[in-house]
Amino acid sequence: MLYQSEMELEVRYYETDQMGIVHHSNYIRYFECGRGKMMDDLGLPVSKFEEYGFVMPVSSVSCKYKTPAKLGDKLRIVSRVEKEPMARVEVFTQIFNQNGDLICEGEVVLGFLNKDTRRPTRAPQEFVDAFKKAIVNN
Amino acid sequence: MLYQSEMELEVRYYETDQMGIVHHSNYIRYFECGRGKMMDDLGLPVSKFEEYGFVMPVSSVSCKYKTPAKLGDKLRIVSRVEKEPMARVEVFTQIFNQNGDLICEGEVVLGFLNKDTRRPTRAPQEFVDAFKKAIVNN
Amino acid sequence: MLYQSEMELEVRYYETDQMGIVHHSNYIRYFECGRGKMMDDLGLPVSKFEEYGFVMPVSSVSCKYKTPAKLGDKLRIVSRVEKEPMARVEVFTQIFNQNGDLICEGEVVLGFLNKDTRRPTRAPQEFVDAFKKAIVNN
Amino acid sequence: MLYQSEMELEVRYYETDQMGIVHHSNYIRYFECGRGKMMDDLGLPVSKFEEYGFVMPVSSVSCKYKTPAKLGDKLRIVSRVEKEPMARVEVFTQIFNQNGDLICEGEVVLGFLNKDTRRPTRAPQEFVDAFKKAIVNN
Repeated sequence: MLYQSEMELEVRYYETDQMGIVHHSNYIRYFECGRGKMMDDLGLPVSKFEEYGFVMPVSSVSCKYKTPAKLGDKLRIVSRVEKEPMARVEVFTQIFNQNGDLICEGEVVLGFLNKDTRRPTRAPQEFVDAFKKAIVNN
Repeated sequence: MLYQSEMELEVRYYETDQMGIVHHSNYIRYFECGRGKMMDDLGLPVSKFEEYGFVMPVSSVSCKYKTPAKLGDKLRIVSRVEKEPMARVEVFTQIFNQNGDLICEGEVVLGFLNKDTRRPTRAPQEFVDAFKKAIVNN
Repeated sequence: MLYQSEMELEVRYYETDQMGIVHHSNYIRYFECGRGKMMDDLGLPVSKFEEYGFVMPVSSVSCKYKTPAKLGDKLRIVSRVEKEPMARVEVFTQIFNQNGDLICEGEVVLGFLNKDTRRPTRAPQEFVDAFKKAIVNN
Repeated sequence: MLYQSEMELEVRYYETDQMGIVHHSNYIRYFECGRGKMMDDLGLPVSKFEEYGFVMPVSSVSCKYKTPAKLGDKLRIVSRVEKEPMARVEVFTQIFNQNGDLICEGEVVLGFLNKDTRRPTRAPQEFVDAFKKAIVNN
């Protein structure tokens, strides 16, 4: 494993639907929250990406739903990168509730685009360095 | 009254919450859909605003909720501008369900910013003209 | 192929993100809109599911993103069921823009729960019948 | 003032729009997060309301937008109740960024419905007691 990051997050009322559970689309958003925390932990916050000249569009997502999350749940989001980022970075995420039940898990693949040209690019040096530095410190 | 526009819209599943009704924040979004339709009708789609060099941030919203909308409802959104746009434009919106019940109503005030400087500006000429042309045609 | 359904949908402003494109999580919601239209076409609207005593939680989603959708785009959502629903139903969805470009495509698997017991159940008779009737009429 | 509660919250990527700022509808959702934290602080979490037999639909919202929030912002949400809850409760909310700038402020009025009959009811005893106990402890 290359790097792992965790965060906690509480279910918000508007994220529930009329089945009384968190709407399935919101876990895709929680995945993104987890990735944001990972980039913060790596010292390269997403809000700085554009300064470094790139954006990171999502090229695919998958998610398997195991146990529904509910209002009042405090979720733990575990994000993991297993391979060194090249033209893409793959992030595997698991979400657990306060009882340790697996809520869902999935994988998101992201690419890199030059901010101005909007053309695909390799992982920018700052991005690769953030991971390298983290591995050394681990 | 200066101008009025209408659109229809169906409630989406993810817009409901665990009370079994449309979450109150979504009507603020429906208001925006209504304004988008109004600008389409006026021949100046929101997607063209930036080409004309401005953006329109919202400076205030208010909404009174009367009857909850539910999954399966087909809503009618009526947007109305009563005064000529100057530094601001005020849009009054009412939402009705398929039975004619008033779901909610409210007012949104928007300003104009120069797209590049992000400084407040008067209503751009294209915007004012769109309304003027519409009034003549009414 | 068992059944196919289509709908049109316009990108909403709040669905865009600061990359200037539709946020990737929203396509998962568009998929759901497409499924809702399919059930309407089949004569069994989602808003009636609970009357028939079941709910349909999502058990997995996947989506591959091809071309970003933008404000002003009019999207066509094509939903397809290829196998007869048993304990699960699999819906394959493709989204195209007004130029015919493939925006994204993916698959959603849904299960059936008894509304009261929240226990898994086979596809309810009304549900299976809706598909059977549609096939005969095709 | 009867009661005040605070929470912190970070802007999420999907909450931004193509203007590069948090979409105005999301502050209405942040207001709700602030109210949820207030109820937690009062010892009566929203997730327990239904156990106590009531739901709290929103009857009106208003919001004035002062400074746009951006990705990377850490917001402070201050929720205040000034009058004892009767048939309604009024919550005044202010949102500040990490620099102390006022992002927006507004008021939300909520009613009480009996969970089963969906008829209006006075503030349930548990709800009033939660406030009373908090005032004594303040």
